[in-house]
Amino acid sequence: MSYVKDGAAIYRESFSIIRREADLSAFQPDVARVVVRMIHACGMTDLPRYVEASEDAAAVGVKALREGAPLLCDAMMVANGITRARLPSSNEVICTLRDERTTEIAATLQTTRSAAAVELWRDRLAGSVVVIGNAPTALFHLLELLGSAGENKSLYPALIVGIPVGFVGAAESKAALATNAFGIPFLTVHGRRGGSAIAAAAVNALASEDE
Amino acid sequence: MSYVKDGAAIYRESFSIIRREADLSAFQPDVARVVVRMIHACGMTDLPRYVEASEDAAAVGVKALREGAPLLCDAMMVANGITRARLPSSNEVICTLRDERTTEIAATLQTTRSAAAVELWRDRLAGSVVVIGNAPTALFHLLELLGSAGENKSLYPALIVGIPVGFVGAAESKAALATNAFGIPFLTVHGRRGGSAIAAAAVNALASEDE
Repeated sequence: MSYVKDGAAIYRESFSIIRREADLSAFQPDVARVVVRMIHACGMTDLPRYVEASEDAAAVGVKALREGAPLLCDAMMVANGITRARLPSSNEVICTLRDERTTEIAATLQTTRSAAAVELWRDRLAGSVVVIGNAPTALFHLLELLGSAGENKSLYPALIVGIPVGFVGAAESKAALATNAFGIPFLTVHGRRGGSAIAAAAVNALASEDE
Repeated sequence: MSYVKDGAAIYRESFSIIRREADLSAFQPDVARVVVRMIHACGMTDLPRYVEASEDAAAVGVKALREGAPLLCDAMMVANGITRARLPSSNEVICTLRDERTTEIAATLQTTRSAAAVELWRDRLAGSVVVIGNAPTALFHLLELLGSAGENKSLYPALIVGIPVGFVGAAESKAALATNAFGIPFLTVHGRRGGSAIAAAAVNALASEDE
């Protein structure tokens, strides 16, 4: 069989196809770079139509990671999709879903384990990069947690990459994120599509300029 | 905010929406169940048009997992997407991508690390369930490896879930898989789309009848 076996060449050719086919005109160059990698992760060049990012999302994300911000992930697949070698400050990649306290918190709050896991982020939220690529309830819970903090901004993450996937709550939670009620920079993909690969790809783009 | 917080209810409602919207008429019920979960993982109800499975793929996959077949995964995200609690025989979930030998094998064979990692599957391939959700080169290399075995079927896995994603080689490798040159049961999603979440979801469906 004849096929390209050179990893670097595969990346180059992939990104070249994406830039040729995808309409990235709605984005500043720094956000467009992120969107290219998100498209690369899912194989769909129509994704840009559904991407919404606050204008400063890429710049803030790059800066936060350089300054050592931890990454708070809602799922192990998200955490595993983040390429450690690209992280500029050996940033911590945290996923609390399998923390032993999560099940009890979920029972107490009568919510999902994914949402309960967000409760365990409280100590690390300030200045972090949140990466939600799976559970709508995690994103909803994060927004509730930020709302309950009122004027107290000490819990505010630097950036919210909120790209849960699915049929129940995904579109709604991302629409809620995009109202930008807290003025926190965000990146999302509207609608049902999303997922850990797309969310992790966004982080991998922010983490390093290497393509 | 008002949203569904009951995990079981979210699953039920999601699967109900999928069965209402997706055209599953091309599949036998056992394959349709798998496709429902694949759709659930990506949020796209048009996926069935691109899914191709050998008629016995679901039955063979279910049986192999019950009998303890190991799962050979091309990426950590795939391995992490497989829900251990659903596996019927505490099946081993194996990913050799980060094995220390992979880099050297890749250099020797002048191929990607993902393809090199497949070389390390040789001892476990017989009767296994292969799950490729990331790298086209891993799927290509697997097909080459099977081809080089000639008439010797001792390397044959029970089932190949081959759903790599991307712009270079993904569609081609899946088309090659679907020629079914070796008569090994397979499941794929044609075109550029695919990925670890969809591949892992297929395994999760085969692993247990629980929805």
